[in-house]
Amino acid sequence: MLSGMQDHDGPLTRLRRSNEQFVLGLLRKHGPQSRAELGTRSGLSRTTLYEIVADLTESGAVVASTPHVAVRKRGRPVEKLSLNPTAGGAVGIDFARRAVHVAVANLAHEVIGSASESHGADLSWPERVDVAWRLLDSLTDPESAAADGAAPAAAPVRLGALGAIGVGVVGPLTDPGSTNAHARDIDGLQDLLRKRHQVPVLLDNNTRLAALAETVWGAASDSSDVLYLRLSHGVGGGLVVGGALHRGGHGLSAEFGHIVVDPSGTRCECGGTGCLETVASLDAVLRRYRQAGGRAADIAGFLRAVEEDDALALEVLDAVGSEIGAVLAGACQTVGPGAVVLGGELAQAGARLLEPVERVLHQRLMPMARHHVDVRRATLGDAVSALGGIALALHESPLLSHYPQPTDAEDTPVTPPARNPWQ
Amino acid sequence: MLSGMQDHDGPLTRLRRSNEQFVLGLLRKHGPQSRAELGTRSGLSRTTLYEIVADLTESGAVVASTPHVAVRKRGRPVEKLSLNPTAGGAVGIDFARRAVHVAVANLAHEVIGSASESHGADLSWPERVDVAWRLLDSLTDPESAAADGAAPAAAPVRLGALGAIGVGVVGPLTDPGSTNAHARDIDGLQDLLRKRHQVPVLLDNNTRLAALAETVWGAASDSSDVLYLRLSHGVGGGLVVGGALHRGGHGLSAEFGHIVVDPSGTRCECGGTGCLETVASLDAVLRRYRQAGGRAADIAGFLRAVEEDDALALEVLDAVGSEIGAVLAGACQTVGPGAVVLGGELAQAGARLLEPVERVLHQRLMPMARHHVDVRRATLGDAVSALGGIALALHESPLLSHYPQPTDAEDTPVTPPARNPWQ
Repeated sequence: MLSGMQDHDGPLTRLRRSNEQFVLGLLRKHGPQSRAELGTRSGLSRTTLYEIVADLTESGAVVASTPHVAVRKRGRPVEKLSLNPTAGGAVGIDFARRAVHVAVANLAHEVIGSASESHGADLSWPERVDVAWRLLDSLTDPESAAADGAAPAAAPVRLGALGAIGVGVVGPLTDPGSTNAHARDIDGLQDLLRKRHQVPVLLDNNTRLAALAETVWGAASDSSDVLYLRLSHGVGGGLVVGGALHRGGHGLSAEFGHIVVDPSGTRCECGGTGCLETVASLDAVLRRYRQAGGRAADIAGFLRAVEEDDALALEVLDAVGSEIGAVLAGACQTVGPGAVVLGGELAQAGARLLEPVERVLHQRLMPMARHHVDVRRATLGDAVSALGGIALALHESPLLSHYPQPTDAEDTPVTPPARNPWQ
Repeated sequence: MLSGMQDHDGPLTRLRRSNEQFVLGLLRKHGPQSRAELGTRSGLSRTTLYEIVADLTESGAVVASTPHVAVRKRGRPVEKLSLNPTAGGAVGIDFARRAVHVAVANLAHEVIGSASESHGADLSWPERVDVAWRLLDSLTDPESAAADGAAPAAAPVRLGALGAIGVGVVGPLTDPGSTNAHARDIDGLQDLLRKRHQVPVLLDNNTRLAALAETVWGAASDSSDVLYLRLSHGVGGGLVVGGALHRGGHGLSAEFGHIVVDPSGTRCECGGTGCLETVASLDAVLRRYRQAGGRAADIAGFLRAVEEDDALALEVLDAVGSEIGAVLAGACQTVGPGAVVLGGELAQAGARLLEPVERVLHQRLMPMARHHVDVRRATLGDAVSALGGIALALHESPLLSHYPQPTDAEDTPVTPPARNPWQ
């Protein structure tokens, strides 16, 4: 449908794709229906609708079938159109430091599957993109998956009607969450990705995307105001407000890792002093444990010591959790979230980390807010940011999320007159 | 128009008022126009539109005039309808601890005027409401204003087409910003207010409303993500996200006054310990100044000492400003605002307060965020929360703000077919 198009960002294509998405939305919402019913509901002209349906059918997004029961008096069977449940609606890709994660959702906004592959830290961007496509193929083509030895997806997904790709990368971006997003040291990633699929590619920080995914599908799916903290090599976060990522005036929100916990502390990579990251990053925790006499080769060793109730490890974790709780208290007083989610490797310590975090958080919250804030461990695993990429594509792509409003919303009549171009 | 209505919250009245507001919106947007033009733009039936226009004209919201130039060939002059610029669209009322402030905006969303009156702390709610109506009358009826000795408003406002009243009160609320909002110890305030005007009464915390007003009309009118801190008898705040008040999961956002600055500090009224309020409230500042040997009978005396560059007063202000800056740093790292606004009596110290606040704020922000955050003094004066009440009414009233969307937004066609019931 889109291959070879030159005008893939032009206004005509946008309108055409808007109308396509509008028709897909009607099929998603009202189920199988005839062309006449689609005509009534869409208000689109007969010619436009015919062309759109032809394209959608050709791409595999829509399938036509003739139910036995519905036969017109004139004897011609009425064809019903419906969504192809295995057609790919959105792809999410997370380019982490040493791994690529890919996830796919169908047109009904259901996540179909996800796949991951680790790589060396110095892999080039074209090579990382190749990894992403290989993973995507494994999710969408059962034969290729079988050849790779991976388990094939239950229902292979076709990408003909792909709406958008949401991509997570490490570090800050300008214009995050948009097709114009730009990450430092990663030029042309969108162009690279669009070589294969000529659809909008939305880029955002992968920690932000993790926050969004945990809100949509994970630990905080019962809340629309969520504070997410990722405790990993760095300490980052994401803030969801009203169900959407809040990026702040300059894309610098949810920087919990760089809230100062000790003004006379150690220098942080951000250039500041005594940030939470200097005490709660994996390196910092491991260093503190070793300096206190603990033995662990890496963070996995530290987490094992925690699990074995090693007193020293628990003491370190208590101190770190207390600092985290104090920072979260200020953040919670600021935004009043419905849920706080802890992700990243350190969160694998589970209740032994959550206990000191909650204790100090509750001590520091104003009493009337205490019973409203609930700290949870993230639930979505390694593919969380790829899932967030899907959520981004579904939420923020102009084509997938909001059906286009009339340009002049104020002039929409209260009761829009219905019109049926098919009659 | 609305007097004597029993069904003023019922669905039929809502639809009728929605259509009224829709017609008012078209007049606001497209200027004077004929009934036929209104018919084309609104898509409303001829009968409905005639009734609406008759009601709006009777209420004084809309005026009809016959321009000399526009004469139909058939000889009958075409009447043009236009908004009555002096018709009241929204009223804001702030019930502060010892004063009532009232402000009025016309249908074009322009603030027409504001008025204030002080009273004793023990004035009953019915009496406070009477004060509010007296102030409102002074703004809308020049004769009554003259009798009171107040200056009459330049153009008296008629309240016939009043859309909503936005009200600020002290303290936390359940369901803030809505017609169901409820403040502790203030039962039935909405009912009391609706005895005179049968329109939606939206209630919110008056510090939140101040934040909204400063964003819409005041110090932060160039920003849509704003952090507002009010330094008064209490220390409160408001958070504006994407141009709208963010209230958090449980109406407990922007509680900057209860972020802990000293875990071993003094007990706070909120039940916590060492909150910012315990060091930055007017009482706390005055106490600190006196304990250090300074002489001031009240906060006005302290502010005079600051203005006279009294070294001790400046030292106290520097210490307090530093604590404020540290709290703001955490809040800014959390939400990434475009502007920070300081209001309340202590902000009258101006640059002498802003300097230490900005110094510590910038020290504590991560370097890449530093040049993005800008601290400003509030500009709107005593009526700020009454103005915020207007902003609330304009932003959040279902009747005034968003023109009603079709109930099924997904089914809105991309290009809504135009229809002219007048032809």
